[in-house]
Amino acid sequence: MKKFIGIDIGGTNIKAGIVDESGRIVVKTSAETDFKKPYPEFVKDIYNICVGLTKKAGLSTADISGVGIGCPGTIWGDKGVIVYSNNLELENIPFVAEFKKNWDIPCAISNDANCAALGEATFGSGRGYENSIFITLGTGVGTGIVLNGKIWEGAHGAGAEGGHSVIVVDGEQCTCGRKGCWEAYASATGLIRETKRLMAENKDTLLHEAAKKQGKISARTSFDAAKQGDAAAKTLVNRYVEYVATGIVNLINFIRPDVIMIGGGVSNEGQYFIDMLQEYADKYNFGGSLNPSVPIKRAELLNDAGLVGAATLAMGMQ
Amino acid sequence: MKKFIGIDIGGTNIKAGIVDESGRIVVKTSAETDFKKPYPEFVKDIYNICVGLTKKAGLSTADISGVGIGCPGTIWGDKGVIVYSNNLELENIPFVAEFKKNWDIPCAISNDANCAALGEATFGSGRGYENSIFITLGTGVGTGIVLNGKIWEGAHGAGAEGGHSVIVVDGEQCTCGRKGCWEAYASATGLIRETKRLMAENKDTLLHEAAKKQGKISARTSFDAAKQGDAAAKTLVNRYVEYVATGIVNLINFIRPDVIMIGGGVSNEGQYFIDMLQEYADKYNFGGSLNPSVPIKRAELLNDAGLVGAATLAMGMQ
Repeated sequence: MKKFIGIDIGGTNIKAGIVDESGRIVVKTSAETDFKKPYPEFVKDIYNICVGLTKKAGLSTADISGVGIGCPGTIWGDKGVIVYSNNLELENIPFVAEFKKNWDIPCAISNDANCAALGEATFGSGRGYENSIFITLGTGVGTGIVLNGKIWEGAHGAGAEGGHSVIVVDGEQCTCGRKGCWEAYASATGLIRETKRLMAENKDTLLHEAAKKQGKISARTSFDAAKQGDAAAKTLVNRYVEYVATGIVNLINFIRPDVIMIGGGVSNEGQYFIDMLQEYADKYNFGGSLNPSVPIKRAELLNDAGLVGAATLAMGMQ
Repeated sequence: MKKFIGIDIGGTNIKAGIVDESGRIVVKTSAETDFKKPYPEFVKDIYNICVGLTKKAGLSTADISGVGIGCPGTIWGDKGVIVYSNNLELENIPFVAEFKKNWDIPCAISNDANCAALGEATFGSGRGYENSIFITLGTGVGTGIVLNGKIWEGAHGAGAEGGHSVIVVDGEQCTCGRKGCWEAYASATGLIRETKRLMAENKDTLLHEAAKKQGKISARTSFDAAKQGDAAAKTLVNRYVEYVATGIVNLINFIRPDVIMIGGGVSNEGQYFIDMLQEYADKYNFGGSLNPSVPIKRAELLNDAGLVGAATLAMGMQ
């Protein structure tokens, strides 16, 4: 079975692994890397990680069929270029060309969330579907689009930013400069903001107890208190679900994918949460019950989605 | 040069034409048709229109390389089926299979707005771009998506309903059952509603005069009064432009097409209107000036977009 290397570059460290054609991780590693070096050195570090991985797996570089890289920021996959990455303070880096100077092997790069979407679509909850949208509900709201089995990254790699879609004109300030983006409401950050507001207004809600138990106010706080029957927390959670589902239905009406996959921290609320989203989507999608339901599924690959997805990107070059 | 027939089925009549490979209409016609007949008869009527067209052009059916059909409603192009069409009161019609019983020729069908998008993308303002979104601002807000030169119609043909994307949670009631859809604000209908509201509140605005001159309150009323310097009308128009542009930026951030094309009645406001949309989009798109501007263009094919687009659909089968 052919083997590929997937590299998931993050703001603080790099996860890397050898993944076989069935999506199984053969071996993985992680490393801190200094992004502030001149880029050829940074790329060389990544090459060295690849060599290390093959040794760890008892293989040689000749056993590897391709390398895929997921990187935060705007990545122009067709050109193999990191257009810019705020997190990594990189701009206009011809990554693939540079990598090939170290190792002449099929190599592809895309945005990290796009890679995660591709991994999840191919080997996770999107298995068997051709067209899917992957939504991560975490600090922000990330979206990845897979059409006909391939990442849709948009012109110059700048698309798939579905979190930055206004759902409340003149609403909450978003980090992107606009007001009322889906991300400002549907992210864990948005939920925590609303939880804090409610706690400041209402001293009687179980939210205070739930937060105390956890040692902090998190996205879980409201779900925990709601599950204990707290009315205020239930209203808060229902409102949050409505915000998340509103954005999902917007995407369904526009793209009508075969499946929607939900990842990120908030997806840990599990099937209880997914079921609420599905109910809303089935009710409010355009055409209602006249159109077949678009299934909403919880992501399966979790923290490995990026790494597996990066390797999947390389598989697509075969 | 190869020739194709394009059929644009509307609620009251059918437009049909022979279109050559360069997008030129060789001959066209229109006819009323009775949709209430059993569907094989309705399909046969369309076949007869095709035969009539070829005669009118001094051609025979052997000179035609394919037939494309645009039809309102949910059309599942891959299957050649009209899933349902409210306007035509049709449901689950195997159109292509039935048509081929009359005439065994390459034949394709898609939603009418999708066909218009394809025509506009191929022979209109989208010439030279691979990926485009066509937006019509009329009674409703229609969207058509062309990716890699092909219509994106979504699962079961139910996608590309970008007008039904909530931009104001709990906002104005939309015909689709949700509240706050883009269509409820960015359509001519939405603009007329707001114009009427403002006129009821404000007796001093030039809107009254503009409406009197036109003999009715239309989408033009507010633009006319604004151009004459009326402050209240200017505020109204600016707000309307913001609504339209908000939805456009949402689509840009998600799909990041190479071009956005604007058609429908409101596009008659011309470059003045387009420039305002472009300014907003360049300012508020994700990444701002770090990303290349997505050009916004006024549609060129106007009333022929559907017919030419339907023929273009057939060209895609070659």
